[in-house]
Amino acid sequence: MQFKDSLANFNISFTQQVQDLFDQQPESVSPKLLSAMRYSVENGGKRIRPYLMALIAETIGVNSDKILPAALALECIHSYSLVHDDLPAMDDDSLRRGKPTCHIQFDEATAILAGDALQALAFSLISNADISDNVKVYWTQCLAKHSGYLGMCGGQSLDLIAENEQVDLAQLEKIHSLKTGALLKCAANMACAAKPELKLSTYQKFDRFTALIGLAFQIQDDILDVVSTTELLGKPQGSDEKLAKSTYPSLLGLEGAKQKAQQVYQSALEQLAEVPYNTDSLAAFAEFIINRKY
Amino acid sequence: MQFKDSLANFNISFTQQVQDLFDQQPESVSPKLLSAMRYSVENGGKRIRPYLMALIAETIGVNSDKILPAALALECIHSYSLVHDDLPAMDDDSLRRGKPTCHIQFDEATAILAGDALQALAFSLISNADISDNVKVYWTQCLAKHSGYLGMCGGQSLDLIAENEQVDLAQLEKIHSLKTGALLKCAANMACAAKPELKLSTYQKFDRFTALIGLAFQIQDDILDVVSTTELLGKPQGSDEKLAKSTYPSLLGLEGAKQKAQQVYQSALEQLAEVPYNTDSLAAFAEFIINRKY
Repeated sequence: MQFKDSLANFNISFTQQVQDLFDQQPESVSPKLLSAMRYSVENGGKRIRPYLMALIAETIGVNSDKILPAALALECIHSYSLVHDDLPAMDDDSLRRGKPTCHIQFDEATAILAGDALQALAFSLISNADISDNVKVYWTQCLAKHSGYLGMCGGQSLDLIAENEQVDLAQLEKIHSLKTGALLKCAANMACAAKPELKLSTYQKFDRFTALIGLAFQIQDDILDVVSTTELLGKPQGSDEKLAKSTYPSLLGLEGAKQKAQQVYQSALEQLAEVPYNTDSLAAFAEFIINRKY
Repeated sequence: MQFKDSLANFNISFTQQVQDLFDQQPESVSPKLLSAMRYSVENGGKRIRPYLMALIAETIGVNSDKILPAALALECIHSYSLVHDDLPAMDDDSLRRGKPTCHIQFDEATAILAGDALQALAFSLISNADISDNVKVYWTQCLAKHSGYLGMCGGQSLDLIAENEQVDLAQLEKIHSLKTGALLKCAANMACAAKPELKLSTYQKFDRFTALIGLAFQIQDDILDVVSTTELLGKPQGSDEKLAKSTYPSLLGLEGAKQKAQQVYQSALEQLAEVPYNTDSLAAFAEFIINRKY
């Protein structure tokens, strides 16, 4: 099966799991808040993070059911970050994946609360998973670290500060390794943790692989913001330039950014080469990241 | 020692623990975000939740050091909820405990992120505590449940919907049991969980005691909003009326609300009477809640 087809299939079954998750929540508490939470996770994009987690699990021989709570939790975290990111005080976006953003569809206060409640739901999911306490604790540590001040939130803060400022390549890389890379690393780490007997060196290779994939993803994102269309992206094309953001193309030129993306992609493949499992699906994943058009 | 003095002493030592916690975070990620997080937790109020947790721990013979990570986590959650609650899209408050609210002191985007990162920090703290995995998992489940959709966030959503609407007493009680009661119950439950050999019946009495205390707290809050002063409260007096909120005084009259508070207080004391420990300090806590002037 082509990579795009298996990603699309995964997307369908994962989105069904998201629907099941929200069907299980009691409506009676606050139907409006629950709708806003559901809306934000169901309006999923490519489901890159849970898919990466599933691929790594499959690669090392962990049943995908076992890591499902962690995958759902990660997607709740990612979704909440987008809801808050889209708020007027932050990126002020009215469109996300071609649909009204949460605060447009509902209201700002509900969007803030929906994000907050999605974060709590993430930790609820992993702490109630059908897996050993040991793994649950590791998952909680991992998700809290990579999503909080030391990860995603820290990166978003730096990203906001960097608007209208010229940042250098090192700072840009730091921003993205926190803002985007942290959750991808978290996906890899959580999948590996479901197999406690995994070799530490393999864990480290996957960690490094996803850090590089995260960087490649961001460079490609910056490139697409220049060369793609609003229709393909599902969000306004050219928004980085509008916000006067430093990007890989603005710092390296478009060709330089493309070269950099290729270099990072090659380094990611080198990490995989040293893993003692069949990593074809992960190599295809890396290729998709670097060649995607949307 | 008088109750007020021990609460004040606790406040000083707990605030020191908060300072130590933030001193341990690396500044290098995003100094601005870290400052906003720190500002929001250091600008503490009465520290009711961690104090309640400490009192219950002491009552059942659990060392206070053992529950410190849970107490700090709970205070991070409470603080983040205030930061987000104060935002223009929510209560739009510029003053909190006599000081500028987080989004006034910093900016709105930073306040949103600081709240988000404080929630993650809370889960990081409990998952890294020096206690058995079993207890950490329970703490995570408990905190996620009581702070999320099924607890605090759900209650805040209902509270927002109830603005400018007439709600009945049952709905008002539901709102407050979620919005305020849930975190107090969480304080009790987390303290109890640190002693796995505790009788379930005692756990349940403390759970019920704190639910009642939470209700009494809220009724007294509503009463103070009518009879106290902005200076004593550290926030604008009369803000409920301004927002056309249904409150206990608006539904029951001021005298009716005072009677209701007394009834709830007596029920709370009845719960304590059945606990096989010396509960004098918890009775004093309940009395403080009901008689406080600020």
